[in-house]
Amino acid sequence: VTASDAAPALDPTAYADRRAIVTGGLGFIGSHLAERLAHLGARVLVIDAEIDGLGANRFNIEGFASRVEVAPIDVRDAASLGPLLDGADVVFDLAGQVSHVDSMDDPLADLELNVRAPLTLLEAIRRRSPHARVVFTSTRQVYGRTERRPVDEHHPVRPTDVNGVNKHAAEGYHRMYHRVHGTDSVVLRLTNTYGPRQLLRHGRQGFIPFFIRAALEGRAIPLFGGGAQVRDANHVLDVVDALVLAGHPDAVVGGETFNLGGAEAFTLRHFAEQLIDIAGSGRIEEVPWPSDRAAIDIGDFAADHGAITSALGWEPEIGLRTGLEETVKFVVEHGHHYW
Amino acid sequence: VTASDAAPALDPTAYADRRAIVTGGLGFIGSHLAERLAHLGARVLVIDAEIDGLGANRFNIEGFASRVEVAPIDVRDAASLGPLLDGADVVFDLAGQVSHVDSMDDPLADLELNVRAPLTLLEAIRRRSPHARVVFTSTRQVYGRTERRPVDEHHPVRPTDVNGVNKHAAEGYHRMYHRVHGTDSVVLRLTNTYGPRQLLRHGRQGFIPFFIRAALEGRAIPLFGGGAQVRDANHVLDVVDALVLAGHPDAVVGGETFNLGGAEAFTLRHFAEQLIDIAGSGRIEEVPWPSDRAAIDIGDFAADHGAITSALGWEPEIGLRTGLEETVKFVVEHGHHYW
Repeated sequence: VTASDAAPALDPTAYADRRAIVTGGLGFIGSHLAERLAHLGARVLVIDAEIDGLGANRFNIEGFASRVEVAPIDVRDAASLGPLLDGADVVFDLAGQVSHVDSMDDPLADLELNVRAPLTLLEAIRRRSPHARVVFTSTRQVYGRTERRPVDEHHPVRPTDVNGVNKHAAEGYHRMYHRVHGTDSVVLRLTNTYGPRQLLRHGRQGFIPFFIRAALEGRAIPLFGGGAQVRDANHVLDVVDALVLAGHPDAVVGGETFNLGGAEAFTLRHFAEQLIDIAGSGRIEEVPWPSDRAAIDIGDFAADHGAITSALGWEPEIGLRTGLEETVKFVVEHGHHYW
Repeated sequence: VTASDAAPALDPTAYADRRAIVTGGLGFIGSHLAERLAHLGARVLVIDAEIDGLGANRFNIEGFASRVEVAPIDVRDAASLGPLLDGADVVFDLAGQVSHVDSMDDPLADLELNVRAPLTLLEAIRRRSPHARVVFTSTRQVYGRTERRPVDEHHPVRPTDVNGVNKHAAEGYHRMYHRVHGTDSVVLRLTNTYGPRQLLRHGRQGFIPFFIRAALEGRAIPLFGGGAQVRDANHVLDVVDALVLAGHPDAVVGGETFNLGGAEAFTLRHFAEQLIDIAGSGRIEEVPWPSDRAAIDIGDFAADHGAITSALGWEPEIGLRTGLEETVKFVVEHGHHYW
């Protein structure tokens, strides 16, 4: 947990004995968050439907399974969900479908997971734990093709895919529930997140896992159009820092929407080069844009995360090189659990 | 069909023999549109699931039933919907749930009708009639509580109810499908619409039908907080003018979003007084705000419709007094079909 001079230092012991719920808690980011919350002394309940093809993986919680409770239910199942919310102090809603390409191939499946599920959860919170803090993870994809960089929260929202429209709708529920029902909701817009436990099975969930696997398997890393596109990225533990701050009982964040964003912007070519250097294998291959990717590409992107720095003192702390070294090491050791 | 000096005059005969689909075409606005399109020589297909409690009413098309085809299917039923789209030249998507209060009581029902349905339709259009013009009717409710009046399309979108979030999500699909798939979609944000054929059964679909019925039955018209709230309204035939212009083959409107808006802004008290005067019955009663209405109230509202005037020459032509006189006359004669 980081703190700037401007923002209040939040007492990490305040999580002790809080009832914390993490949807999608068997997944990549969710499992790291659940682990951190358990470490902070929270009573952690993971809710995860373990939907095939998404990020849930029991191996993710192997090191701390005894310290969290797991409810294998689907958030859309309101009858099963409701009782689990009783007494919740903080709910982190991380469940979802994150593939932009998949959202275009099957818009209605994305609607189920990214709109119906969060709305069902919000309704349950309103009825069963109306005073809980709610932290919803959205995506920088809501901005679509950007007009300027870095992108702050006032940038127009013009998603280029169904996933972006749907995540923005779910954000809208959170802001509206705050205004109308007083729900203590905050929205974080994540950029590319990487690190241990990320699904590496296929190439439909962002470039990072795909690049990592290609490098480690000594294959070509395809750079669409030469790889000049600018991106930023966060190591998953930096994202967990932000989530823990946003869910902190002393944070006053109801109704707010914050970008996360990496410490540095980079080109995809630079990212691939770093990876090849660290892995000691792989190679770059320039390829033409596939039409389905070109249609939903967002151009260059880097987030301005100044608002959450001011409000909560969050700053990304793990640089790309360090983060990738640690990630590659994890994948070399445990990658077989992720593909 | 109206035209300003600035905008192109669009040839009304261009609808002759076009295949025009109207979802929600048995409803209030949809039936007027279907009638107009049939009058313009279009081959009209009405798609309407006749969902209980919504606006569908076979009496609405009694006068022209032989001139339109009716498919009694639910737009969410993709398998039945698909073949109906083949050969469509223009699709007007008017199906939906319009009650703001109902959307708060049952958010997931609103999601089905206002998000899943339009997304299913867009997918079908993309696959079966990718060159069709698509006109989607949204609502001024997307703006929420307004910062300034009149409200133009650049005003922030901060809905105060589930219906507003959901309609905005559906708008987002249309703009995104335009950007990514080239779908020739245009969004119209309607304000309060009134006129013949409006459902008068209950008070959950805006103040206008509720006020009309109360006046005609000689009952009290309840004005929350005294009735100082500002609104605007369009007669349904003015809305039909706008729809016909937006769907016109010569209109270049893909990706655009336009407000409709009344010729005059008025207070609810003024509206009620006009109505009582025209009906010769009814009375005003000041009542405190019910909490469920206060929570989702949007404050004062009047739309700036300058953008659609510039683009398509649309202006509302029917003044409130004239429109209400005609509406009251219709309700006196046919009201028993609507409650």
